[in-house]
Amino acid sequence: MADGISSAEVDRPVYTHQAVRLDEGIDLECGVHLAPLDIAYCTYGVLSPARDNAILVCHALTGDQYIAEPSPVTGKPGWWSRMVGPGLPIDTDRFFVICSNVLGGCMGSTGPKSIRPDTGRAWDTDFPQITMHDIVAAQVRLIDYLGIGRLFAVVGGSMGGMQALTWVADHSDRVFAVMPIATSPFHSAQNIAFNEVSRQAILADPHWHGGRYRDFGEIPARGLGVARMMAHITYLSEEALTRKFGRRTRREVATTSKSADAEASSLFGEIFEVESYLRHQGSTFVRRFDANSYLTITRAMNYFDLAAEYDGDLAEAFRKCETRFCVVSFSSDWLFPTSQSRVLVRALNRAGANVSFVEIESDRGHDAFLLDEPDFDRTVRGFINGAAEHAGLKWGNSDAG
Amino acid sequence: MADGISSAEVDRPVYTHQAVRLDEGIDLECGVHLAPLDIAYCTYGVLSPARDNAILVCHALTGDQYIAEPSPVTGKPGWWSRMVGPGLPIDTDRFFVICSNVLGGCMGSTGPKSIRPDTGRAWDTDFPQITMHDIVAAQVRLIDYLGIGRLFAVVGGSMGGMQALTWVADHSDRVFAVMPIATSPFHSAQNIAFNEVSRQAILADPHWHGGRYRDFGEIPARGLGVARMMAHITYLSEEALTRKFGRRTRREVATTSKSADAEASSLFGEIFEVESYLRHQGSTFVRRFDANSYLTITRAMNYFDLAAEYDGDLAEAFRKCETRFCVVSFSSDWLFPTSQSRVLVRALNRAGANVSFVEIESDRGHDAFLLDEPDFDRTVRGFINGAAEHAGLKWGNSDAG
Repeated sequence: MADGISSAEVDRPVYTHQAVRLDEGIDLECGVHLAPLDIAYCTYGVLSPARDNAILVCHALTGDQYIAEPSPVTGKPGWWSRMVGPGLPIDTDRFFVICSNVLGGCMGSTGPKSIRPDTGRAWDTDFPQITMHDIVAAQVRLIDYLGIGRLFAVVGGSMGGMQALTWVADHSDRVFAVMPIATSPFHSAQNIAFNEVSRQAILADPHWHGGRYRDFGEIPARGLGVARMMAHITYLSEEALTRKFGRRTRREVATTSKSADAEASSLFGEIFEVESYLRHQGSTFVRRFDANSYLTITRAMNYFDLAAEYDGDLAEAFRKCETRFCVVSFSSDWLFPTSQSRVLVRALNRAGANVSFVEIESDRGHDAFLLDEPDFDRTVRGFINGAAEHAGLKWGNSDAG
Repeated sequence: MADGISSAEVDRPVYTHQAVRLDEGIDLECGVHLAPLDIAYCTYGVLSPARDNAILVCHALTGDQYIAEPSPVTGKPGWWSRMVGPGLPIDTDRFFVICSNVLGGCMGSTGPKSIRPDTGRAWDTDFPQITMHDIVAAQVRLIDYLGIGRLFAVVGGSMGGMQALTWVADHSDRVFAVMPIATSPFHSAQNIAFNEVSRQAILADPHWHGGRYRDFGEIPARGLGVARMMAHITYLSEEALTRKFGRRTRREVATTSKSADAEASSLFGEIFEVESYLRHQGSTFVRRFDANSYLTITRAMNYFDLAAEYDGDLAEAFRKCETRFCVVSFSSDWLFPTSQSRVLVRALNRAGANVSFVEIESDRGHDAFLLDEPDFDRTVRGFINGAAEHAGLKWGNSDAG
């Protein structure tokens, strides 16, 4: 096991969650040197003596490092606990799985709520603007720290897929296989537009205080809640919303803030179930996520456009790369539609990369990658196991490749 | 020309815009009797001696009665001035075209900003919740007042299409032909969800004041702006956004409210053009539209579900109706997708109605019905002229049928 990893937890599956502080910090694309650099992460499984079985899982916009164990904040099961674990498609009996909270996040890695050494106050809106390259560069520091030269695989959905693609573009020699899932090589105009609405909702909140809400002991909860509600719609398909809620109504629960919600009462004292669901999504989100992190990370997504860095030719980002790709999209995902995965796949083909592409039939929208989708599970298991065979990974006598 | 109409304007095309106050008021579905009832409207063209050439155009959520003349509020051309006018598909040389501001609106018809007789203050959040049936019932009063027994046609897009369908469901004997455009016989779970986000954005604004913002001399401009920005995304297709803006950036214009917008500055001092466009859409909207009207009307849309009123059988809403239908959808409209028009058309077929259905190929999304779409223009002209022939309309010697 690598330096810095201790098995503080003894439950099955074995997991550790901890943070490393790298005093030397990191040079960001915008020119700022950010130090120290904290990276909070979890690991699952055991790193092989050859250090060749590590899988980095990259989380999405509002995800965190708690893939396969309950979140210490919400107590809910890990966000990919149906995918990562003993015997699961990403099998922690075989692989050493790492997930770190992204740079700019709010779950232990350096971000807007971290204390700025020179002022002793939180960075907040003064946190430097980061990019997907910076997020990956921070992960590189963690992988170095763990003593891992080459990752067996990098896997990520949505913004996690952007990180996975950036890993290959920036460090293809350090990634044997990659799975970009429900993602895109660029953030679309529509997605930039949705992010802008989110941001304006947060900035409109009276508790925003120009981003210095911590100084006032407040959070822009309503604005952030509105942002989350809107984003949540984009994560689901119209079919999924119709199946889950349709036009069903329920009797409205009395609110505590009567005057502010006076308008919320409906024609017959009932509200639509989808309204109730969205309000719940908004109100639980603000308890676990920081508004300045949300703004920082969504902007990093907005700036993501790999082709633009190669004179508009996406293939150049992957020229001469030996990494094996498995690109996955979902048929009803309208946030990161299959057409955007096809742009990626065509570029990979032009670059002569080793690529397979699967569009999973699902009517559950973007969120499908987090849900029980047997075809998707089979795809992940098949690609990981096949790549492990090609990589010549060994797991002792009983269960070799 | 009917009672109550004067030709105050002499420009070509001839138009009048005025309001009528009906002291007897109106009984609403919710049980409230609302009096007086003001209806602000515009007319174009001349009512025939037989009073058989009237076309009622129903406007969409944020539309108004100024179809074919500049809005007195914004100074911009009428919202359908490319469709309604002399020689245009809805030809004011032949037809007498009427458009009234909807009940609940904010352009002269009775709505939340109207003065309540018993209190002398604006209704605001006490304005009774209205339905699409109430909106149409108010239009019926106007048509009665104008001395028109049967409308030659009712035409409307988006929420205007909901009104058109309601006209036929409630008064098929008074509608010879109907064009429901880019609309649906029910408001979908996804659309209810988007409306809920809009509402929460408005309620989150500190200037909302529990809906009593007028008493404070304020408007919840940022919340309403956020609502409009989000809605605007849903009016366009991803293709349209990509073509119009893509990922292009521009140098950011300095804002007056530096502290509130501190976060708005971007990585390289530039913002995406789509961001700038949406902010403009939001900020201009709040100058012309009332937040309480927005909430009242969106909720009326939420409650729209014709089939539910007929034990779930939409065909029953149109049983034995003689009205001629032309249903129009646009291929890239994801707010009111073609699938929802198909639900309507199948029900009309089951009801044995006279129906034609056209899906216009367009990549411009929901807004296509307001834009230059030659196939759509041809469809409108063809249906209107064909129906006029069937109705046996005469226009003197020179241009009959």
